[in-house]
Amino acid sequence: MALIVQKFGGTSVADCERIKNVVRRVIATKKKGNDMVVVLSAMAGQTNHLISLAQEMQEFPHPREMDVLLSTGEQVTIALFCMAAREMGVEAVSFLGHQIPIRTDDAHTRARIEDIDAEKLKAVLKEGQIAVVAGFQGVTGTGDITTLGRGGSDTTAVAVAVALDANLCEIFTDVDGVYSTDPNICATARKLDRISYEEMLEMASLGAKVLEIRSVEFAMRYAMPLHVRSSFTDTPGTMVVKEDATMENILVSGVTYSRDEARITISKVPDRPGIAAAIFRPISDAGMVVDMIIQNARAGDLTDMTFTVPRADYRQTMELVKRVASKIGAENVAGDDSIAKVSIVGVGMRNHSGVAGRMFEILASHGINVLMISTSEIKISCVIEEKFTELAVRALHDGFELDKGPAT
Amino acid sequence: MALIVQKFGGTSVADCERIKNVVRRVIATKKKGNDMVVVLSAMAGQTNHLISLAQEMQEFPHPREMDVLLSTGEQVTIALFCMAAREMGVEAVSFLGHQIPIRTDDAHTRARIEDIDAEKLKAVLKEGQIAVVAGFQGVTGTGDITTLGRGGSDTTAVAVAVALDANLCEIFTDVDGVYSTDPNICATARKLDRISYEEMLEMASLGAKVLEIRSVEFAMRYAMPLHVRSSFTDTPGTMVVKEDATMENILVSGVTYSRDEARITISKVPDRPGIAAAIFRPISDAGMVVDMIIQNARAGDLTDMTFTVPRADYRQTMELVKRVASKIGAENVAGDDSIAKVSIVGVGMRNHSGVAGRMFEILASHGINVLMISTSEIKISCVIEEKFTELAVRALHDGFELDKGPAT
Repeated sequence: MALIVQKFGGTSVADCERIKNVVRRVIATKKKGNDMVVVLSAMAGQTNHLISLAQEMQEFPHPREMDVLLSTGEQVTIALFCMAAREMGVEAVSFLGHQIPIRTDDAHTRARIEDIDAEKLKAVLKEGQIAVVAGFQGVTGTGDITTLGRGGSDTTAVAVAVALDANLCEIFTDVDGVYSTDPNICATARKLDRISYEEMLEMASLGAKVLEIRSVEFAMRYAMPLHVRSSFTDTPGTMVVKEDATMENILVSGVTYSRDEARITISKVPDRPGIAAAIFRPISDAGMVVDMIIQNARAGDLTDMTFTVPRADYRQTMELVKRVASKIGAENVAGDDSIAKVSIVGVGMRNHSGVAGRMFEILASHGINVLMISTSEIKISCVIEEKFTELAVRALHDGFELDKGPAT
Repeated sequence: MALIVQKFGGTSVADCERIKNVVRRVIATKKKGNDMVVVLSAMAGQTNHLISLAQEMQEFPHPREMDVLLSTGEQVTIALFCMAAREMGVEAVSFLGHQIPIRTDDAHTRARIEDIDAEKLKAVLKEGQIAVVAGFQGVTGTGDITTLGRGGSDTTAVAVAVALDANLCEIFTDVDGVYSTDPNICATARKLDRISYEEMLEMASLGAKVLEIRSVEFAMRYAMPLHVRSSFTDTPGTMVVKEDATMENILVSGVTYSRDEARITISKVPDRPGIAAAIFRPISDAGMVVDMIIQNARAGDLTDMTFTVPRADYRQTMELVKRVASKIGAENVAGDDSIAKVSIVGVGMRNHSGVAGRMFEILASHGINVLMISTSEIKISCVIEEKFTELAVRALHDGFELDKGPAT
């Protein structure tokens, strides 16, 4: 007998019939002798509907009131779930964030969980009932309602699992696991049976939007095993777990990509100490996040700086940089918002060299020019022209033979 | 400067534009120098929508979960109100039942308010902000969410007004006040400027559904003046106040009616002690509410019993009574569900005789037969054939010259 937390996303609870299907699943797992805690999102579309109402009322909706509004979505689904469970003869009790409580800081619309009191949930489980928790929401120390930001229900599920010392946290979604790459681009993409937290983090932050990144960080910190799986089939999904010895041989687990990129180059900058700060301080002060930075020395104490920003920030950053460039005496500013980033991820890179070289070879053999490179312990990213995105992903997936399993 | 509680019903907050209109009204009253507390209902239709979702999930939705579900309706409107107010430059802070808290008993879906802590509301008012309270909802001592039943937002408004020792509680609705009778039936119906709590209670319970009856009882107990008025015009509505000396002369304030009636007669019942209990105990045990009861003695220790029940309970009550009748040896059971009740209400009846006689004369002069009569201190009701309802209402309104003002 195990204690299992199961989280179902918006598409899994999109209407009354789907909620009933979710209830049947949960009851089936319970009947195998497990204690069940369920975390639910709002019905698909509901959060967007509420946001559009808010935007009709106020140009920049007040964050505290936004949270009062948005938290109703999950409140509806947990109540409906409990009714359906009782109709099927199983007692289920709903919990809102403030009823548990799930304490957060007071950063409205993007709050962080600080503490969860597990006592009330434990009492319900002890009675043989299903505990049903509203995802995405919490409460501050002064009783204000907060929400955790997009994908926050994943974080709720993991945090509740940790607080209860659960055996497993299952995230049910509309895909059946984590894939070696995007199946929409690459037909031979393979579902991964297991992946480490670190790899999952690199995959998630690079655009494989299956799990909310904070929830993976949370699970990693407390070594809570995650099972990402489909709410529409019974097939096992992908286990996200602590890295173990068997994973060390895996050079590449997956290929990811992001089109949300733009590149800016400042040419012939007079190279003196503090010049990088002079360029990047105004950008970060404006709230823009710079990803890769490359500096090339030129002759005559001049240097070129190239960096990437999210594409949505491109125009604003260009204007900012042009002002800065004239101030610091740079010769030219150029930009390009039709670039993409492709990356390979694998824990085995830590102990093996040569993976980067192989990646560049594969790209080169398909005529794809690499514009920028960045690497971390378990990831290598290349910036390329956007038009090559699909080709690059397929080439890397084929080249590392990921259709046959993780590359070793 | 006064402290005013304003409550707006579902039709007044039915969409974003209407909510903005409500906000403008509240701000206008605030700018006259008043401290403002606003109590809001759910958007019109929303509560019924949620109930239909619940009924899809469970045949008899679990009351605790029903309250979790239904309380979201008001949560949405208070958040939207506060956003719109801030967009117009006025600070407004929303409060859910559990945040104030509004403590209730644990009778889910029809809870009663036990206590309201006014401190947080007072703090907001002291800051010059508008306090915006979710109507209809409260919280139990153990943190469960409760709702107060249909029309519960009126009760919230009055209870909050009492807790804050407000100067006035204004109930904004889709009619512009309390009328001398139903304007849909009687074109000469007049809006009343003032009416006593007692009269309002008789009017409300008899079918003039402008105010929720519990809210009037609450206001009466604490002598909180109510102002019932339209949210779509600036015209003053009807003040519901403590009876004063000037009201004693008012014989008849209004004429009300109810079609929600059915009549059952048990004939030739052997008349012995305890016979009434033998008949009515099973009916009340089944949860049915009997209104009028008349007993007529016959020759030979036999008696006839006639009583009325809500029309919705008619068939079930008939079956019950037939079983009881055979047990106690009654000769016959007859019923009629095409009856109606017309009533005249006025505080002056306490000190004046002859009003009943005048009522019977008026009805008789229009050929309307009176089937049953019941009286209270400030009300006389007659049961008549349903087909005469409109005729009776108009005849009484004309007969007591209510188009010229309350009959004295």
